[in-house]
Amino acid sequence: MDPVRLSQQIEFIAEIDKLKRVIRESWLVDASRKETDAEHSWHITVMALLLQEYANETDVDILKVMKMLLIHDIVEIDAGDTFIYDKEHAQDQNERETRAANRIFGLLPADQQAEFFALWEEFENVKTPEARFARTIDSMQPLLLAYLNEGMSWKIHNIIRSQVIDMKKHMGNGSSVLWEYTLELLEDAIKKGILKD
Amino acid sequence: MDPVRLSQQIEFIAEIDKLKRVIRESWLVDASRKETDAEHSWHITVMALLLQEYANETDVDILKVMKMLLIHDIVEIDAGDTFIYDKEHAQDQNERETRAANRIFGLLPADQQAEFFALWEEFENVKTPEARFARTIDSMQPLLLAYLNEGMSWKIHNIIRSQVIDMKKHMGNGSSVLWEYTLELLEDAIKKGILKD
Repeated sequence: MDPVRLSQQIEFIAEIDKLKRVIRESWLVDASRKETDAEHSWHITVMALLLQEYANETDVDILKVMKMLLIHDIVEIDAGDTFIYDKEHAQDQNERETRAANRIFGLLPADQQAEFFALWEEFENVKTPEARFARTIDSMQPLLLAYLNEGMSWKIHNIIRSQVIDMKKHMGNGSSVLWEYTLELLEDAIKKGILKD
Repeated sequence: MDPVRLSQQIEFIAEIDKLKRVIRESWLVDASRKETDAEHSWHITVMALLLQEYANETDVDILKVMKMLLIHDIVEIDAGDTFIYDKEHAQDQNERETRAANRIFGLLPADQQAEFFALWEEFENVKTPEARFARTIDSMQPLLLAYLNEGMSWKIHNIIRSQVIDMKKHMGNGSSVLWEYTLELLEDAIKKGILKD
């Protein structure tokens, strides 16, 4: 056992505790409060495990998908959560997040730093079957929460259906089944009056 | 695609959102508040991924370990969090948790219900290398948080070192390296005056 290696790993584990203090724009199902990034990361990882059968591409490496979902939001400890409908704030998002990835994954021993950085980059670049499916799940979860909590974030930010479709249609690249299901949810949300057309 | 199957999966995903409202006795590193079960589940899953090299038994199936850690606390939605030093409350814990596992995993399609129930049982019975390592990580995380936040939960509940050792010594079954490291943390906590001898 290399004590320097272990202390680097523990330092990283302590650092990422801060993901519990990054607040998202998504409200819990019971609308009692917004969720944290750590909670979101847990929820999407379980979702990927349960819904893997709906990935467009067969033989998706589910372990890799889960790893991506567990760690891709860690950069938001430094870079903050960027609400997907906030286009102004999104402009320097990539630069802020790359800086954060270098600093935070840089706490790890070199081999694990390289692995985590590569997973984060793969997720960001969305060019592999695993990244496409992971993105689909990551995009579906806040939409499902909004549907279930009667449109909290849609109402607060005056979001209309065409904006949701515009931002989420890439979901079809990871899973046509889940994208079709999502379109049905949106149709139902319009009927219920919790989303504007 | 079977719409009944998908709607069962979505119902489960909506139900487990409640894990974000189960509050543990562990405080965040910055001691600003207690963490939620969902946050804890995320944190330990990342820890397992990073620290797998320290498992006593080689060739531990890390995907299985991660699945166990992601889902084993879901029963606390019904059964509540049982603080490990609370021996009175622990008496009917197993019965409460089994009832909860039946209800909550029972929302899933039969094959996934069986898989999740089996993972939860394997974790509870601690008879496989994967369960031993998962238990070790699950036990180490609150202890690491307590060390980092200057002993919040130790002070509040008047916990002394021998109680911690008594409740945590099973960690050595999953990882001697991590148990040795933990004993050093406790020694340091005594020196710093954040844990009583």
